[in-house]
Amino acid sequence: MFIGRVIGTVWSTIKWPSLEGTKLLLVRPFHYDEVTTGKVPKTADCDGVVVADTLDAGVGDTVIVAYGHAARVAVTPDLAVGDKPSHPIDAAIVAIVDGVEVDSGA
Amino acid sequence: MFIGRVIGTVWSTIKWPSLEGTKLLLVRPFHYDEVTTGKVPKTADCDGVVVADTLDAGVGDTVIVAYGHAARVAVTPDLAVGDKPSHPIDAAIVAIVDGVEVDSGA
Amino acid sequence: MFIGRVIGTVWSTIKWPSLEGTKLLLVRPFHYDEVTTGKVPKTADCDGVVVADTLDAGVGDTVIVAYGHAARVAVTPDLAVGDKPSHPIDAAIVAIVDGVEVDSGA
Amino acid sequence: MFIGRVIGTVWSTIKWPSLEGTKLLLVRPFHYDEVTTGKVPKTADCDGVVVADTLDAGVGDTVIVAYGHAARVAVTPDLAVGDKPSHPIDAAIVAIVDGVEVDSGA
Amino acid sequence: MFIGRVIGTVWSTIKWPSLEGTKLLLVRPFHYDEVTTGKVPKTADCDGVVVADTLDAGVGDTVIVAYGHAARVAVTPDLAVGDKPSHPIDAAIVAIVDGVEVDSGA
Repeated sequence: MFIGRVIGTVWSTIKWPSLEGTKLLLVRPFHYDEVTTGKVPKTADCDGVVVADTLDAGVGDTVIVAYGHAARVAVTPDLAVGDKPSHPIDAAIVAIVDGVEVDSGA
Repeated sequence: MFIGRVIGTVWSTIKWPSLEGTKLLLVRPFHYDEVTTGKVPKTADCDGVVVADTLDAGVGDTVIVAYGHAARVAVTPDLAVGDKPSHPIDAAIVAIVDGVEVDSGA
Repeated sequence: MFIGRVIGTVWSTIKWPSLEGTKLLLVRPFHYDEVTTGKVPKTADCDGVVVADTLDAGVGDTVIVAYGHAARVAVTPDLAVGDKPSHPIDAAIVAIVDGVEVDSGA
Repeated sequence: MFIGRVIGTVWSTIKWPSLEGTKLLLVRPFHYDEVTTGKVPKTADCDGVVVADTLDAGVGDTVIVAYGHAARVAVTPDLAVGDKPSHPIDAAIVAIVDGVEVDSGA
Repeated sequence: MFIGRVIGTVWSTIKWPSLEGTKLLLVRPFHYDEVTTGKVPKTADCDGVVVADTLDAGVGDTVIVAYGHAARVAVTPDLAVGDKPSHPIDAAIVAIVDGVEVDSGA
C-alpha cells in the first residue's frame, strides 16, 4: 500500500458495466521526502494513479491505496470468504489517513 | 489503474488461441504533468503498454487501463462470481475518459 | 520480498472495516548499497511503503515485506488451504531480520 | 502486456520439476522510442525478462509478453475454466507481433 | 521472471510460522549489460530481492526468480491442481542457470 493525496476526479461514460456507480479519483503518491517533511518535491515526476473509492474521500485528503485483489475486496462490501470479487478494478482507497509519525533517525 | 492515450494498434497472427478476436492496442501512460497541464513531456521515456480492448476505443482516445485479474474480468463479459477468467491477458481498457478535474493545489 | 526499515506509524479512523485493529507501519525499502555497506544513501528517493504488521515490529526494526496474496496470508492466521483471504491488504511484514550476510564479490 | 524482442535463450538443468520441457527465452522490452522509430535507444537500460514460450518464437522475433496468471494460462493449454494453473512461471509470450501501427501525433 | 546472482543470506527468528525452515536468500537482479557482457555495472542501483529457495542455490549462483503465485507454487512441492498455496512468499528461485546465449544484434 502507499500513501498519497487525492488530487482530482475522473469522469467516464463509456466504461465496463460493473464500473457504473464507482467513484474514480486521481491520487498522487507521496515521495519519501514529502511524508517526512511535508514539502511537495519540485520535480513531482510521479504519475497519478486512478483509484476506486467507497470511503467518501475528497480532493486534498491523504489516503492509503491498495492494489490488486485487495482493491477489489475494498469495493465489494458483502464478499464471502473464498469468493473472488469480479470488479475490473486494480487500485482502491482502503483508508483515509489521520496522521503519520516518522522517526527520521530510524 | 492508470490514465493514458491510445497511440496505436498491434497485429499478430501467431498467438495464444484464446486471444483470437481480441483487439490489442498500444497505450502510452500519461505523466503527471500531462494530466495536469495537458502538455506532452519532451522526454516521453515511458513505455507503451499493450492492452486488450472491448470498449471500441480508438487511436487518440484517453482511457483508463487496469492490470491483472481486473483486466481479465474486463474481457470476459459473462463471468460468474467466483469464476476465474482464463484469458492470457494482463492489461485491458476498462473505461474511456470524458474528463479529468485536477486541483493542482491539493 | 524486500528488506527495509520500519520508520513510522500510520493512523487512520476512516477505513475499510476489516482493517480495524490492523497495525499499519511505514517501511523504507533498503537500497542495494545500504544492505551491503550499512550506510543510508544521501538521495533516498525511494518511497515509503505502508504495510500491515502482526509480528510486533517496531520503529527501527529491519524487516522483510511481502506483497500481494502473501501479505494477506500473513494477516490471516487461521487460513485454511485453498481459502482466499479477504483483507484489503497488499503488503505485510512476514519476518523481522536478525542479520544479512552479503558476499560483495559475488 | 509489453512488446519486446527475443534476444537470447536461457539454459538450466537444476530447476523446479514442472519447468522441465519449458523453453525459457530472454526478452528485451522495447522503449517507447523504439516502437515508434524502430531505432534501438543508445542507453538500453532496460533489463531482460525471462519468459516461457510455447509459440515457437525465435531470437529476433518481436513478441507480446504477459505477466502473472495470464502467463501461466499461456503455458497450460488444457486449462479448464475456474482451474488455477500450477506452473511456477510469471511471464510468457502470448503472441508474435506482425506489425505495430503508431500514430505519433496521438 | 528475472535473472540475478545470489549475493547473500538473510536470517530471521521472528517470522510468520509457515516461513519456518524456508531458506531466504538475497538476489541482485542482473542489468541488461551484465547479461550480455558479463560485467557488473558501476552504478549498481538495483535493489536486492529477498527470495525463498528450495533448489539448494548458493552464494554466487546465477538464478531465475519468479514472483507471486509462481513463487508460492515453487515452495509447495505437493500442491494439487486448483489448490491455492498459503505461504507468505512472493519471490522464489525456480531454476539455477547453466548458461545464457544472447544475440546482441537482435
